[in-house]
Amino acid sequence: MLSEIYLDNSATTRQYDEVTSLMAEVASKYYGNPSSLHTKGIEAERLVSGARETIASLLGAQPSEIFFTSGGTESNNLAIVGYLDANPRKGKHVITTKTEHPSVLEVYRNLESRGYSVDYLDVDGNGRIIPGQLEQKIRPDTALISIILVNNETGTIQDINRISSIRDALNPHAVIHADAVQAFGKIKLNPAKSGIGLMSFSSHKIHGPKGVGALYVSKSLRINPLFYGGGQETLLRSGTENVPGIAGFGLAAKMTAERIEENYRKAARLKQLLVEGLAASDVEHRVNSPDDALPYIINISFRNVRAEVLLHHLEQRGIFVSTGSACSSHKKNRSHVLTAMNVDPALIDGALRFSLSHRNTEEDIRLTLDALKDIIPVIDISKKKKSGRM
Amino acid sequence: MLSEIYLDNSATTRQYDEVTSLMAEVASKYYGNPSSLHTKGIEAERLVSGARETIASLLGAQPSEIFFTSGGTESNNLAIVGYLDANPRKGKHVITTKTEHPSVLEVYRNLESRGYSVDYLDVDGNGRIIPGQLEQKIRPDTALISIILVNNETGTIQDINRISSIRDALNPHAVIHADAVQAFGKIKLNPAKSGIGLMSFSSHKIHGPKGVGALYVSKSLRINPLFYGGGQETLLRSGTENVPGIAGFGLAAKMTAERIEENYRKAARLKQLLVEGLAASDVEHRVNSPDDALPYIINISFRNVRAEVLLHHLEQRGIFVSTGSACSSHKKNRSHVLTAMNVDPALIDGALRFSLSHRNTEEDIRLTLDALKDIIPVIDISKKKKSGRM
Repeated sequence: MLSEIYLDNSATTRQYDEVTSLMAEVASKYYGNPSSLHTKGIEAERLVSGARETIASLLGAQPSEIFFTSGGTESNNLAIVGYLDANPRKGKHVITTKTEHPSVLEVYRNLESRGYSVDYLDVDGNGRIIPGQLEQKIRPDTALISIILVNNETGTIQDINRISSIRDALNPHAVIHADAVQAFGKIKLNPAKSGIGLMSFSSHKIHGPKGVGALYVSKSLRINPLFYGGGQETLLRSGTENVPGIAGFGLAAKMTAERIEENYRKAARLKQLLVEGLAASDVEHRVNSPDDALPYIINISFRNVRAEVLLHHLEQRGIFVSTGSACSSHKKNRSHVLTAMNVDPALIDGALRFSLSHRNTEEDIRLTLDALKDIIPVIDISKKKKSGRM
Repeated sequence: MLSEIYLDNSATTRQYDEVTSLMAEVASKYYGNPSSLHTKGIEAERLVSGARETIASLLGAQPSEIFFTSGGTESNNLAIVGYLDANPRKGKHVITTKTEHPSVLEVYRNLESRGYSVDYLDVDGNGRIIPGQLEQKIRPDTALISIILVNNETGTIQDINRISSIRDALNPHAVIHADAVQAFGKIKLNPAKSGIGLMSFSSHKIHGPKGVGALYVSKSLRINPLFYGGGQETLLRSGTENVPGIAGFGLAAKMTAERIEENYRKAARLKQLLVEGLAASDVEHRVNSPDDALPYIINISFRNVRAEVLLHHLEQRGIFVSTGSACSSHKKNRSHVLTAMNVDPALIDGALRFSLSHRNTEEDIRLTLDALKDIIPVIDISKKKKSGRM
């Protein structure tokens, strides 16, 4: 069998084996419903509480500020809709960026039809918002500002402390929601210290189970649920808790956090290897991710190459990468993130995302470089045309 | 260790070991994101499609009519809110029953504040709606009728075909939503044949994983999503699919359906054993579940007993039961279901739910009967008072 080189870790990760084992144990031994009054319910409730404490402690938050959801998309939806619905008097104006994940952008598009006025901030060539533009857009009726902390296509890190300071100066009542799905487990986060009221997380991006996420809600905020029912999660998220999934998320978060710095250094080394390897080669390319991006995500455009063709050639060598984000890969539109960064459309069509995990190796990167050097001359559109004419 | 006699299967079930194994295999080998364009994405997508086909075929439905969610609560919310939001011109009147699960009742309470007029149907002493009352309540502007197919506290089965006929006669445009969470895998269901437009399911009630559910949406209906984002599940349910969970749900559904009749007969035998055993004993009680209820759920009131006290005594013998439903067990209110059935409040306070799985044994029931006969005289309030006076 071909060995797998999985460089699509921002789409999803392979679950830690320890997490898989824990989930199997929970499913078989601690299978009660946390709402049940008997021991089997109490055991299950304790697992959920334990995971909540783990995640809270990693964020410098209180356990009562962490709510489990079915994933990052639900967390983003709950944060935005839940906050605005619960606080109608805070204003009908919201600010976000042009480079958010669809689970934020599409929520705001929908809210526009419900009478909200939405400003979509531009970004510079590195994918960062322009502080002066944020200053201009904040109004007395700005209720919410949604910012993706680490962009899922490019790894661009927004300067959240700067954003928070601007908010403090111009409208301290505006709440900041940070989509931290790609940031969690990669960089240290402390929402309270950064002045963030709402922060979204996903489990399956950090080698935890799919179908689980969390939302941090500052204790100073009131938000409404998206679902109604049994009143689980302090009334905010009804539905029987996914106990094995939540326990698995807690373990994955703990395992990832324990090595956060070591993992980061490894990702930085691997990114350097890839970027320098390409720079030293004949492959015509442009690194779209800024130098100071999160090193786990490297967006690179290859000239005269159609990204999807390159993706499938790499796949034949057991190398798995992505064009843009997984969530919008089936759509035919060009990447809205690279478009907002003003990347030449021809280069956008040749853009691949290499997204790393601490589990990738230097050998993975060397083999990927070899593959790129082999494949690209073969699929180069300009060369094909020339040879076609001969 | 005390052997476990788990009679709280309507709260949640112990996952099939085969499901646990499959989920571990999927998490370790087929860990791709179904939205990814490469093989690992395609493999994952195939697992989701396979589960969808399994569940569709069990319902006589088309795969395109099945949408995966995070559970029964989300399915009920999505069915009701999604349908009403997408069809504002169908009317602002809805009908439901007084004995729905909180994940239906609380949605309607919320919709009342959004301008909907809701009629809550009464039930008779067996927990069944009164057809004449439904006939009276259906109006030209009735958009939706939500009926719990099998009640989660008593096992009462509603005559859905009769309800459907009444709807056909009086307002064929009114859509029926059936909460089939407790019915699925226990009785054969065919929503299209029964004239049902929307039907909700949960995985963890049939020995599948927690955190997964499904909604049947007739192809003739249009509904809106609750979440916005990447557009998964044909735009209806954004968010990375919980691939191991969905695959596990598919397997649990298949395993349960294969033995649906055999399992039913076993549950009926166990119910008979419990009911006849109590009838032949000195234990003063009243069976609240009607004779023709789903045999998996047996609600019994014990006279002069506080249900919670009895529950904890049973627990000490390794027997796990429930007071009312798990989802409302932490609330101090009396069961809304038994109240609607006009059960004497003193008897409601002594009501336990014994909910079976086909995995329970006759020995489980015999030991439970022995325990009830031992415990009840000891905790009988009337006897305590007498002995106190002596």
